[in-house]
Amino acid sequence: MADIAGLLSDIVGAEHVLTGDAINDDYTHDESLTARPVRPAFVVRPGSTADVAQIVRLAAEHALPLTARGSGTGLSGACIPSAEGILVSFERMAEILEIDLGNHMAVVQPGVTLEQLDEVTRGHGLVYPVFPGESSASLGGNVNTNAGGMRAVKYGVTRHQVLALEAVLGTGEVVRTGGRFVKATSGYDLTQLVIGSEGTLGVVTEATLRLYPRPEHSATVLAPFARLDEITEAVPRIVGSGIGPLILEYIDLVSMGGITSAAGLDLGVPAEIKESALAYLVVVLEQRRADRLEEDVQELAEMIAGFGALDVYVLPPQAGSALIAARERAFWGAKAAGAHDLIDMVVPRAQMTRYMAEVASVAESTGSFIVGCGHAGDGNVHLSVFQPDPGVLHDAVHRVLSAGAALGGAVSGEHGIGVAKKDHFLALEDPAKIELMRRIKTAFDPAGILNPGVLF
Amino acid sequence: MADIAGLLSDIVGAEHVLTGDAINDDYTHDESLTARPVRPAFVVRPGSTADVAQIVRLAAEHALPLTARGSGTGLSGACIPSAEGILVSFERMAEILEIDLGNHMAVVQPGVTLEQLDEVTRGHGLVYPVFPGESSASLGGNVNTNAGGMRAVKYGVTRHQVLALEAVLGTGEVVRTGGRFVKATSGYDLTQLVIGSEGTLGVVTEATLRLYPRPEHSATVLAPFARLDEITEAVPRIVGSGIGPLILEYIDLVSMGGITSAAGLDLGVPAEIKESALAYLVVVLEQRRADRLEEDVQELAEMIAGFGALDVYVLPPQAGSALIAARERAFWGAKAAGAHDLIDMVVPRAQMTRYMAEVASVAESTGSFIVGCGHAGDGNVHLSVFQPDPGVLHDAVHRVLSAGAALGGAVSGEHGIGVAKKDHFLALEDPAKIELMRRIKTAFDPAGILNPGVLF
Repeated sequence: MADIAGLLSDIVGAEHVLTGDAINDDYTHDESLTARPVRPAFVVRPGSTADVAQIVRLAAEHALPLTARGSGTGLSGACIPSAEGILVSFERMAEILEIDLGNHMAVVQPGVTLEQLDEVTRGHGLVYPVFPGESSASLGGNVNTNAGGMRAVKYGVTRHQVLALEAVLGTGEVVRTGGRFVKATSGYDLTQLVIGSEGTLGVVTEATLRLYPRPEHSATVLAPFARLDEITEAVPRIVGSGIGPLILEYIDLVSMGGITSAAGLDLGVPAEIKESALAYLVVVLEQRRADRLEEDVQELAEMIAGFGALDVYVLPPQAGSALIAARERAFWGAKAAGAHDLIDMVVPRAQMTRYMAEVASVAESTGSFIVGCGHAGDGNVHLSVFQPDPGVLHDAVHRVLSAGAALGGAVSGEHGIGVAKKDHFLALEDPAKIELMRRIKTAFDPAGILNPGVLF
Repeated sequence: MADIAGLLSDIVGAEHVLTGDAINDDYTHDESLTARPVRPAFVVRPGSTADVAQIVRLAAEHALPLTARGSGTGLSGACIPSAEGILVSFERMAEILEIDLGNHMAVVQPGVTLEQLDEVTRGHGLVYPVFPGESSASLGGNVNTNAGGMRAVKYGVTRHQVLALEAVLGTGEVVRTGGRFVKATSGYDLTQLVIGSEGTLGVVTEATLRLYPRPEHSATVLAPFARLDEITEAVPRIVGSGIGPLILEYIDLVSMGGITSAAGLDLGVPAEIKESALAYLVVVLEQRRADRLEEDVQELAEMIAGFGALDVYVLPPQAGSALIAARERAFWGAKAAGAHDLIDMVVPRAQMTRYMAEVASVAESTGSFIVGCGHAGDGNVHLSVFQPDPGVLHDAVHRVLSAGAALGGAVSGEHGIGVAKKDHFLALEDPAKIELMRRIKTAFDPAGILNPGVLF
């Protein structure tokens, strides 16, 4: 039997190869609530693309599963390794290689975190606009999960911001896709194919990301509503107004209680309003001019009042930021509260009202407690499912996902399929598409070593 | 030998199958200047997706090449059929199936033209924002070439607007990709893979497109410059200002002369300015409020003056529209003037200055005349090459494309590779990527019947 650890050490140096007890528990899991941790046979920390290419070739030669890992903040278990496999961890490839001011782009290694990038772009008056809610997440992980977040209603998701990639195929070949431009029709778009592929098509070793001028002025508007469906009905009209919200979220009663109490946040909503509010609409506007922001806020507030809001509050800047920050930590609240599973289904925005009614009906008929918040502007609903019985839980989740699929939705809006939603994905997706995806997978990874067990 | 015409007639009815002399010349070519027309053995006009699926299965059974055709306005020869093959033409599948106001989307058949869609969306105060400059182009063709155009600097290209597709694979299987949402991480993004694949991966039978609120107010700013590089230097600064132009073009002296004289257009530029102007910057701004438009125009005009413009003109609305319309017809001017080839290379925006210098040097050393205009905001340069000697022409084009590739560009920004740029594409692209693309092609089209000879 080959001395894999020795061969890996030849590539990266023995100090960057871990085995057995030297492998920290962190490497065995991500933040998924349902995926089981797995300790890999080897953890290796490459220092360069050339290292990664050699590691992949070694894995292919020895038919060893290989899983890439960024910060491990994913929610679908896609970076959980195989027990007999190699985990490639990117803490040594975490450099911002370039801020290209002429093209408004950043070139980053996969281990760079969102926080790290934001700090540097801020200094240039620029912003990388994808904020999936966990700033310690790595860009490599973001690319692989096509990370989204609250600002997607304005800027789109990771898919819309990644212009070029360097990736190592399952063959060990290094390819560079795309370029420092937003448009090209020169062969198939390999960049878009790798984005969101959850480590199954290639190991991403570099990404070129779009940056935008960072608007200086923003404001947060909060509106309690007596019914959730009033919010879901209002959303298309707000988007259609052309006012261009940065963030357009709904938060249900229970989640708002959890979010604000965990953050010790008082938003100044009077008790009598709180008592009749079943859900909250949160809208953030941004503008490059303060006067326009003020006008837009006024216009938005009047619009929302007309949609039946119980009241409309323009939050003081600090309270606004605190609410958004607290909303970003909603996952941790759900986890702390003992949620048994998370759902991040995306449905057509205009179907959210029907979808939420279906969710309520599943909750009732399975005796589960299902609450949440979501990116209302995108139809991306985040639900925490509380149901201690594993069989009933699986059934409830499957019914919630089936209901969304029947309305034209997709199983995951931004968390990915990973291992956590694989059963549901395979059961709900068209078998012809699954077979096509398998053939595409083979085109990239003929030996089937890249993250096997994820997606398929 | 099988009676293919008879079998096709069984599918769509004999009146929708053409052979021999009944095949109009229009079916033999697109608008490419260099691709040779080819008369197919069969033209078939399906009426439904089911028809298309049967036709593809028939083609696969009999190993017949199959090419899809929209309006035939492409510039790379990608819809030119094979002599022994089947041309699938979409004049009978040209219906707007739905304008979905809740989701701001349109669902169209492939034969729908941009003009047709614009007329309907206008009535709803919405817009499909891709304007590749030829409004008789079909949406099916736009999807297959990832059509761009002048508004890409604000809205992106077709790739950014197509949310879902129905397509027939080379196996005859019908798949529906994506959905009425802007974000999903649920398997590989098949939608993005088919977009820009020039008919080689599937036959698109339906597309779901994003619509936007149609801003009511727009203004056109024209600025002559003494040097083209002053414009290419100004572009990143205009984009970086956050003013968000809808259109950001440069037009060189010769092209501006051709464009305005063909359209009988007087832009009111005084003779003494015209004499020193080597290139023009054209910027269109749009806003949902007239007062903001006026402020933005003022700000932009001051900015441009600061970049060394010889003068700055805010065009009266009619002159502005006429200039943009005339610019959209620039291709016809180049064709009428006898251009021998067209180039639509895309380079990183910040490399345009260097790229144009390289182009000038190729023009000089090959004794060619190379002029143009382009989407300066995207680094997408449109060049007309005048060089009567075919060998020298090929060399000049190849050197212009190589120079752009060396600067990090791609062979085609929006026209596609088709047959017209195939030699150059294959020579300049990484062989590992070409092989990967071939394997992807096989995953979609194992029999290799879909538009063979295009791309590869």
